[in-house]
Amino acid sequence: MAKAKTAIVPTRSENYPEWYQSVLKAADLAEHSPVRGCMVIKPWGYALWENIQRYLDAKIKETGHVNAYFPLFIPLSFLEKEAQHVEGFAKECAVVTHHRLEKNKEGKLVPAGALEEPLIVRPTSEMIIGYSFSKWIDSYRDLPLLINQWCNVVRWEMRTRMFLRTAEFLWQEGHTAHATRKEAEEEAKKMLKVYVDFAHECLAIPVISGEKTESERFPGAVHTYTIEAMMQDRKALQAGTSHFLGQNFASSCGIQFQSEKGEREYAWTTSWGVTTRLIGALIMMHSDDDGLVLPPRVAELHLVIIPILHSEEGKEEVLQYADHLASEIRKIQYEGSSIRVFVDKRDMRGGEKSWGWIKKGVPLRLELGPREMEMKEFQIARRDKPHKEKISLKHSELSQISSLLQEMQNNLLEKAQRFRDENTVNIDKKEDFIQFFSSKEEEIGGGFALCHWNGDAAVEAEIKEKLNVTIRCIPHHLPLEEGRCIWTQEKSSRRVLFAKAY
Amino acid sequence: MAKAKTAIVPTRSENYPEWYQSVLKAADLAEHSPVRGCMVIKPWGYALWENIQRYLDAKIKETGHVNAYFPLFIPLSFLEKEAQHVEGFAKECAVVTHHRLEKNKEGKLVPAGALEEPLIVRPTSEMIIGYSFSKWIDSYRDLPLLINQWCNVVRWEMRTRMFLRTAEFLWQEGHTAHATRKEAEEEAKKMLKVYVDFAHECLAIPVISGEKTESERFPGAVHTYTIEAMMQDRKALQAGTSHFLGQNFASSCGIQFQSEKGEREYAWTTSWGVTTRLIGALIMMHSDDDGLVLPPRVAELHLVIIPILHSEEGKEEVLQYADHLASEIRKIQYEGSSIRVFVDKRDMRGGEKSWGWIKKGVPLRLELGPREMEMKEFQIARRDKPHKEKISLKHSELSQISSLLQEMQNNLLEKAQRFRDENTVNIDKKEDFIQFFSSKEEEIGGGFALCHWNGDAAVEAEIKEKLNVTIRCIPHHLPLEEGRCIWTQEKSSRRVLFAKAY
Repeated sequence: MAKAKTAIVPTRSENYPEWYQSVLKAADLAEHSPVRGCMVIKPWGYALWENIQRYLDAKIKETGHVNAYFPLFIPLSFLEKEAQHVEGFAKECAVVTHHRLEKNKEGKLVPAGALEEPLIVRPTSEMIIGYSFSKWIDSYRDLPLLINQWCNVVRWEMRTRMFLRTAEFLWQEGHTAHATRKEAEEEAKKMLKVYVDFAHECLAIPVISGEKTESERFPGAVHTYTIEAMMQDRKALQAGTSHFLGQNFASSCGIQFQSEKGEREYAWTTSWGVTTRLIGALIMMHSDDDGLVLPPRVAELHLVIIPILHSEEGKEEVLQYADHLASEIRKIQYEGSSIRVFVDKRDMRGGEKSWGWIKKGVPLRLELGPREMEMKEFQIARRDKPHKEKISLKHSELSQISSLLQEMQNNLLEKAQRFRDENTVNIDKKEDFIQFFSSKEEEIGGGFALCHWNGDAAVEAEIKEKLNVTIRCIPHHLPLEEGRCIWTQEKSSRRVLFAKAY
Repeated sequence: MAKAKTAIVPTRSENYPEWYQSVLKAADLAEHSPVRGCMVIKPWGYALWENIQRYLDAKIKETGHVNAYFPLFIPLSFLEKEAQHVEGFAKECAVVTHHRLEKNKEGKLVPAGALEEPLIVRPTSEMIIGYSFSKWIDSYRDLPLLINQWCNVVRWEMRTRMFLRTAEFLWQEGHTAHATRKEAEEEAKKMLKVYVDFAHECLAIPVISGEKTESERFPGAVHTYTIEAMMQDRKALQAGTSHFLGQNFASSCGIQFQSEKGEREYAWTTSWGVTTRLIGALIMMHSDDDGLVLPPRVAELHLVIIPILHSEEGKEEVLQYADHLASEIRKIQYEGSSIRVFVDKRDMRGGEKSWGWIKKGVPLRLELGPREMEMKEFQIARRDKPHKEKISLKHSELSQISSLLQEMQNNLLEKAQRFRDENTVNIDKKEDFIQFFSSKEEEIGGGFALCHWNGDAAVEAEIKEKLNVTIRCIPHHLPLEEGRCIWTQEKSSRRVLFAKAY
């Protein structure tokens, strides 16, 4: 059989990493910037972030948190207060050392006005927010303190990939302080649950939630919880984390409160965040060999009307009717707001336009010619179905567009779940484990392997070194179970999730 | 007469700058951070920014612009491409010179990994966005290109004041490219108009729009347009600017396009922005000696219900009824959405609660005790009226709350307009001019003086040096008029706006 022609070259099976870059480019989501490791998020990509923000911000506020804004810069001495924390970020810090530019003798502009103390561009804000918390909290009545911040952060990554790992990225970081250990632990878990629901509901990304092993913990955390998603190359992507920080940061930052009993105690804190990486996950999760596929809830446009004009004759009528149809469709409600419609009037062949919107992942396309106008019956293509497969709707049936969107949202989630489940296995023998993760293609993961592990970080490191496989998490949903470590045959009480990862 | 007790000390007339800081503190809007010149925007202050963003973002999108995101860092060589531009910002740049931290021989963490080229933390993004534009634009068909960005920027100011002038601030920056000079000039003016309307409608801040003189232009611009507001100390505050950049930046950044005639031409560009400074303007515009006063459109809460409990008896009933009343009021529409209500159940004296909300500027307060509950008649206090003056509403009249908010919004704007008009004068004699601006108090401005000026930058500089008075703008609304320069008696064809300024 001849190979079908695809809009994206190479295809997923030919070269997954290059396919990813091609999808980004074809959908016009982002591009490299001249600043090492930093990207430009183009309008079609940024709209995804705006929709993610809108959806998630509402969930964060519903759970009682309020937004605030803290400085971009962190004095070096602040970062140093928490030994593990600074150790974790020292290798990837952008450091501000001067506060102006000046011409030197050769007339060349050079940094001048050396700062007394270097400033670090925030890689995360525990230390600077912790300072504020130490001033804001005085008594148990000030607790819990539930704050969130939307901002940019910088981590000087050496190997970057657009959306997945960039030197600068956008995120939200929640920071909370509580009077008791129990309450803070519950908060860290509650916010992880918010992320799980958000990934499922909004992004149609099924995730496995669990706890990170000690070696994968956030620097300074007591527990790090994570959500992990399986991409189409069967590798894992960490899509969000939530940390129970114990009293570590409270003690470094001096966050103390007077308890009901009148004693001075350190508060218990948490932090949690998701980043623009979610857009990378979204792309890799649903896209196909013809480009991006967007779940309706996060899509900037739900439906594009593409006027088909074979000649100049009747052109004005079709364009006018397209506008009329768009306003009719906008009256239909999808999840409490108007359906987002665009009429593509560009002076371009209809087929070219259609392919453009296919590559950009718009959920529904409606091609409108004189015949459809006359018959008042419309053919709608769904981005998650074969392009030639059309749903026929009479004018009186247009309200069904809302259900089409709902069905597509559900279908994407189910498809992703099916794929993940098909590629998740229990493995009990070392040779099977090695076989599972030994693909000829370095870039392709075997899938998710649920295996016993003896809890030893040295074993974890050895597996990582030999197979490039890591423990993604100790999944919350797995029951305790007697077994033997996949690597050492030592006794183990539960399975953990192994995978290659982004 | 004994001096009335005020919630804010000192009062406006006693010490305006200190009053401003006290209002900020009493309303819990923001505070100084340990990072020089940077502030922490606290939740009550940040909510104002979120509301400003929501309102203005919609206007920016309605006028055809889309949001995107560009890197935080600008390579030094990029900034240097536009001579005037780099000259304008060189003295206040945060410079990143290293990308990690390392322990030196004494075990002290110091910057390491020197960058080949220093990076500037964006003070504004013309040069980095211009680079993208040069790649995105190829033909006249790609124009106009209408982009906006919401982000943080850094200008290393030496004298800072919260919200009004800070080293890091939040803003939106629009950047557009056009095929013709005319279209770009119209765009710059159109966006200034968007700012004028936004300031009037949303913030109840009346502004005078006009053009800046050459010496006050944005570095590299051909025309800079501005909106100027009069604060209660009669000083001017620049609340937003819009720049027609000609082909200066297009030429520095290489933004060229093929015209319809097939020729390569430089594009015509604009940029325009408003910042968190608007929050400073909002505070100084409407607040009084008892604290913040918020226009309803930008207020995070429209109405607070304050349960008044004289004893434990009946407490539960009152609190329950308060919740019930809140949900009734939330059903009332104000400008297309629900009225934002909060029930203050804190365990605290009613009077103390009331004063807290007065200081925080909430438009309406409703005190609810057993008597109001029984009578189903409620007393509502409006923040812009004397605190003891109450509006009595029966349960069946609650829908009038929406009109109360509308009236308050209008009243604040009218009051501000009246104050500005009362303090704006035409001055034609040099001695009157000097007299007008010679207050004993350095911090108090005389008002707005509309005077003739010969157009000479040296005269402008002399006036600035002698009186600390600047030309805020050449107002758009003033007609041409023959006259004599206030300083030199030379002929002049129009008046300009002089004032002391923030």
